[in-house]
Amino acid sequence: MNNKVNFPKNCWYVAATSDEIEAKPLGRIVCGKSMVLFRAAEGQVAALEDFCPHRGAPLSLGTVANGLLVCGYHGMRMNADGKCAGMAGQSVEHFRKGIQTYPAIERHGYIWVWPGDAALANADLIPDLHWARSPDWAFGGGMFHIRCDYRLLIDNLLDLTHETYVHASSIGQPEIEEAAPDTLRKDHHVSVSRFMEDIPAPPFWQDALKGNNLDPDLPVDRWQVCRFSPPGSVMIDVGVAHAGHGGIEAPVERRASGIVVDLITPETETSCWYFWGMARNFNVTDLALTDSIRDSQLKIFTEDLEMLESQQRNLEANPERRLMSLNIDRGGVEARKILQELIASE
Amino acid sequence: MNNKVNFPKNCWYVAATSDEIEAKPLGRIVCGKSMVLFRAAEGQVAALEDFCPHRGAPLSLGTVANGLLVCGYHGMRMNADGKCAGMAGQSVEHFRKGIQTYPAIERHGYIWVWPGDAALANADLIPDLHWARSPDWAFGGGMFHIRCDYRLLIDNLLDLTHETYVHASSIGQPEIEEAAPDTLRKDHHVSVSRFMEDIPAPPFWQDALKGNNLDPDLPVDRWQVCRFSPPGSVMIDVGVAHAGHGGIEAPVERRASGIVVDLITPETETSCWYFWGMARNFNVTDLALTDSIRDSQLKIFTEDLEMLESQQRNLEANPERRLMSLNIDRGGVEARKILQELIASE
Amino acid sequence: MNNKVNFPKNCWYVAATSDEIEAKPLGRIVCGKSMVLFRAAEGQVAALEDFCPHRGAPLSLGTVANGLLVCGYHGMRMNADGKCAGMAGQSVEHFRKGIQTYPAIERHGYIWVWPGDAALANADLIPDLHWARSPDWAFGGGMFHIRCDYRLLIDNLLDLTHETYVHASSIGQPEIEEAAPDTLRKDHHVSVSRFMEDIPAPPFWQDALKGNNLDPDLPVDRWQVCRFSPPGSVMIDVGVAHAGHGGIEAPVERRASGIVVDLITPETETSCWYFWGMARNFNVTDLALTDSIRDSQLKIFTEDLEMLESQQRNLEANPERRLMSLNIDRGGVEARKILQELIASE
Repeated sequence: MNNKVNFPKNCWYVAATSDEIEAKPLGRIVCGKSMVLFRAAEGQVAALEDFCPHRGAPLSLGTVANGLLVCGYHGMRMNADGKCAGMAGQSVEHFRKGIQTYPAIERHGYIWVWPGDAALANADLIPDLHWARSPDWAFGGGMFHIRCDYRLLIDNLLDLTHETYVHASSIGQPEIEEAAPDTLRKDHHVSVSRFMEDIPAPPFWQDALKGNNLDPDLPVDRWQVCRFSPPGSVMIDVGVAHAGHGGIEAPVERRASGIVVDLITPETETSCWYFWGMARNFNVTDLALTDSIRDSQLKIFTEDLEMLESQQRNLEANPERRLMSLNIDRGGVEARKILQELIASE
Repeated sequence: MNNKVNFPKNCWYVAATSDEIEAKPLGRIVCGKSMVLFRAAEGQVAALEDFCPHRGAPLSLGTVANGLLVCGYHGMRMNADGKCAGMAGQSVEHFRKGIQTYPAIERHGYIWVWPGDAALANADLIPDLHWARSPDWAFGGGMFHIRCDYRLLIDNLLDLTHETYVHASSIGQPEIEEAAPDTLRKDHHVSVSRFMEDIPAPPFWQDALKGNNLDPDLPVDRWQVCRFSPPGSVMIDVGVAHAGHGGIEAPVERRASGIVVDLITPETETSCWYFWGMARNFNVTDLALTDSIRDSQLKIFTEDLEMLESQQRNLEANPERRLMSLNIDRGGVEARKILQELIASE
Repeated sequence: MNNKVNFPKNCWYVAATSDEIEAKPLGRIVCGKSMVLFRAAEGQVAALEDFCPHRGAPLSLGTVANGLLVCGYHGMRMNADGKCAGMAGQSVEHFRKGIQTYPAIERHGYIWVWPGDAALANADLIPDLHWARSPDWAFGGGMFHIRCDYRLLIDNLLDLTHETYVHASSIGQPEIEEAAPDTLRKDHHVSVSRFMEDIPAPPFWQDALKGNNLDPDLPVDRWQVCRFSPPGSVMIDVGVAHAGHGGIEAPVERRASGIVVDLITPETETSCWYFWGMARNFNVTDLALTDSIRDSQLKIFTEDLEMLESQQRNLEANPERRLMSLNIDRGGVEARKILQELIASE
């Protein structure tokens, strides 16, 4: 832990879900920058500095009218380009100096913002979340605010041996830590894979098997393939199949599987936003199953939250300590190297 | 925003209402000074440093007995002049060095203190609140602690265009921002006046018209005359009269009107005490009406409180930003100049 | 108040009660050191730095299995000597550098730790709490966290004139402050004694007399003998006897008495742990009486807690102030001298 900036800025980050800005503007800090997100004319999303140029009130306390953001204090109206658009009884259009804007795009159900150099913002760099635009997949998720360095959460998601201890009653089982992980770095991506054969399914996966109308008590093959992409995406192929039917390659009628979705955005050096969820491609029209999985994930990720915030406090209190790097930690170590390369290149 | 002291000290400030010290001593920080207020012999009010010279306990946790302030820890008895008056089993009268005292006067239902040079404290400088000593007026009010520079609250009260946005459901209406304010400075006083003719009455004023047995649905002339006097007094003549009967000069049987009372005291550089209320000279014996107006004001000023604390945080996070000065801001700008002149003269 | 370290380190401090570590490990900060306390093999207690060498998680969130402390994040197993004992799927025994350990001993129902130089830790220095190992005594107590310099609590317990003011409804009475205390220092110990003759018993002692089947309404002789031993022990012989039967020497059928137990441990420079209770040698099998006395003490010490935290804040806000030293303060003054000598000798 040191006080150097620990995140790259020339990246797309998820700032909010689409739902969060449906009814009114939303204030959110992303990479240390206080932003107001709103839907401007024709539903286009916009991100401005959350600071009214009139008297400094947060614009996020305002409303949207006719595609303009209206300050909730004295009614200054702001364009999506950060310029004053008007104010009752005033001539404010001559204030040529506006407030900071940030590139913002709505895609895959999320609002993505680019906190760095706007000239470099390229919509093609937004990751393609294929499950978010396909009728063959169902998705449910949520969002947490966590008081920890976002990299601790990336570490967490690239070393799933913690499931045995932190999530003992749901997805943990001793077979996870007994199976060595296979960690690969390719360019700016890291994958950590683990395969377990002929083991009992833990409770979460028993429920998922039932959700796909499969016997939950048979032995299974289980897999976890974590894929990190900078700055804060960890997509995890997870699942179980009745043992001996091909594991990760088993046909859908023998398996329950999905993608654990983790999109992580630094708020500050020591806090982050965590957009989590699960995409699945079985029984996709069963909304009760979606809710049930979301509820299970909520409980599971709440366990992580407590551990991560405790770990953050402990690391802050011991800034000089060096940590171990075991084989299970290699995913996180490689991810941090990639992030450091990106930060250095800026 | 800077860290220079932002309030004058050689002034009378309201520290409490009379009611607040009725039953026991009260601890309160005024202009950064921690004081204990109490009723000494014959009901005279006194303000001492809130620090027992024996072991440093806050004297405000104590009691009053025989006109002396008795420390709640070990019973040190303090005179109103800050000297030790006695202690059971001890001879403490020889401790000639006492604790700090502050000039304190009870008047108009408030306890006024002078945090600066006591030699300059002159009771004639306490403003004359004529409505507080007249049977022709009724008063109801309350007190807030607000985490903002007290000057933000003065700005707020001298630019009532915010009513349209912050108080849209009670006293706000678009006609306010459409009427240009008339701002005048004379010596150390500022007035900001606004007159609106032949407009609908907003809900708060409809209720007030009913409270004076007048038709709430007729068009009205409305007025707001804000009068600032340093350090923190803003008295606002407000009212509506049935349109065409003289407005602010209309006879009482055609109008509902009053004085919005705002007495503001810095606690620290970034927090303040806000003593608010309304004085009215119609239907003065109707206690239910007094309560109803107080409840409405409580809701309205709570809306301000949230905005002011958000604005304060935003300004602290952006100390380098310059704000706009539109015509609507001129009252606040002039008030700050007066305060700065007073601070500089100290 | 200054920022120099205000506690000696080469001492035994009570870190917890035996009960607190019965079911699982306990995290606690003692003299600024963050420790995890647990029962290792064969019930032996151990105290380690609360920091997993793997990824920095607090070990106190873990569990104990087979006498080893198991980290709750990824399952690192730690020996009582602070060395890695194993981890599933890993070879961690070669990590020779472990984490900090602290001498720890369980005795008299408490876990005692030595935060200083382990080479000097000598179990014989743990005070002998004779009542804790005798069937002739009953004990009940509790624990508080208080946000004050632990020395303010020692001051409090060595000047019981505060009972008259802080505990007016239970153990306070004006006769306390009217009786001058007798303060003696001998080596590293201080005693403060006070004897009151032929006075009414206050409510707490009336209840105690009833608990010993004695008339609560007769006049009593009352005594308080406070005995301080560094670093944070104050044992107070307290009691009342029917007047004229020998006071502190009266036979048990004429008295109600006990030892107020106060074991104080600094958490930081400005906060402490307070292990309190009462040992009595009458009616010792009456568990309802034990509970009743504990409830009364809980209420009484809660009154101290509020006063101490207020005093601490006041002293922090006025670091330059010198306090008085009256005869009633001499016990605390001598105790501080002893502590300062111990600190200086380290």
